[in-house]
Amino acid sequence: MPVFHAHIPKGRFSREQKIAMGNALNRSLVVALGIPEGDRFIVISEHGDDELFIDPTFMEMERSVNAMIIEVQLGAHRPTSDKTALMAEICRQLGDAADIAPDDIFISLIPVPNENFSFGRGVAQLAGIPARW
Amino acid sequence: MPVFHAHIPKGRFSREQKIAMGNALNRSLVVALGIPEGDRFIVISEHGDDELFIDPTFMEMERSVNAMIIEVQLGAHRPTSDKTALMAEICRQLGDAADIAPDDIFISLIPVPNENFSFGRGVAQLAGIPARW
Amino acid sequence: MPVFHAHIPKGRFSREQKIAMGNALNRSLVVALGIPEGDRFIVISEHGDDELFIDPTFMEMERSVNAMIIEVQLGAHRPTSDKTALMAEICRQLGDAADIAPDDIFISLIPVPNENFSFGRGVAQLAGIPARW
Repeated sequence: MPVFHAHIPKGRFSREQKIAMGNALNRSLVVALGIPEGDRFIVISEHGDDELFIDPTFMEMERSVNAMIIEVQLGAHRPTSDKTALMAEICRQLGDAADIAPDDIFISLIPVPNENFSFGRGVAQLAGIPARW
Repeated sequence: MPVFHAHIPKGRFSREQKIAMGNALNRSLVVALGIPEGDRFIVISEHGDDELFIDPTFMEMERSVNAMIIEVQLGAHRPTSDKTALMAEICRQLGDAADIAPDDIFISLIPVPNENFSFGRGVAQLAGIPARW
Repeated sequence: MPVFHAHIPKGRFSREQKIAMGNALNRSLVVALGIPEGDRFIVISEHGDDELFIDPTFMEMERSVNAMIIEVQLGAHRPTSDKTALMAEICRQLGDAADIAPDDIFISLIPVPNENFSFGRGVAQLAGIPARW
């Protein structure tokens, strides 16, 4: 149930590339965290150049016009090692699938306790059980 | 001050249905948590089918093309019982008001301390007072 | 690495005003929290009047059709004094730069640990170092 929300520059990526990005983000969960492939809840938003402001060089990066911000709602129980593994894998997968440069990928992981997710039917399916994902 | 952000599939819901969804989300706070009706801060975003990826069956659901992701910024002090009550009520209200199937409603509750909200004028109106909402 | 996401009413602000808003949000970090000017990661989304629902008077405000919701992903280590300083400065800067009324600015600060941010290359640049920002 990590939920992704990617904010990308408008008109820079084709339909095929956006679908590839969705697949890549899902794949990063499977590879880095062993999360089931079916756990796919991903949102992409496009923003015009008067709606998306990303510094081109902050923290010694060389960002291009393709730079993007990716938010991930991640289980609050995850240790640092899981977080850094996921960040690295997101970059790898987005590079492989959609040719996005690693410098162009800003990531924030928003901690959300597992019991705060409902997969449907108004039920907190993961409440009261030990965290697997 | 729970803030809602609903991510819905593009072109699937009419203007009237989206307004009904906004009312239903607001109503869920009133019924489940006793929050004042005036506490209405709700955002809806539409996403094309190359921008919204939701697995059709994960966790034994039967999701349709209407499946959506609803994020709620909820007071971090809320116990589990409040969270599950809210999830259930969101489903009930969205079903009644806009005929949305319970399997189509994915929810995540992002915990935010009450003192982190400003209702206007740059002031944290709820800082330093016991949590009512 | 505070990340801003502003939800504004559609068609109410010009391109110039939106750019001024982005600059104002960035400036609020510099003035209120001493964050480097280069730390600019800002998203704006427009929503039609069937997609953005904000109560006009809740908590004794007098909101106009320009009312907006601003989410900030803020370092989880920030004390209350930093939060209230930032809220006040956001209002000041948005008023000065884009003539937005203080009553029209709803803010939520979503706490995110510094180690949960990656500025690029899949690395958590702030993990394991004392929080400066």
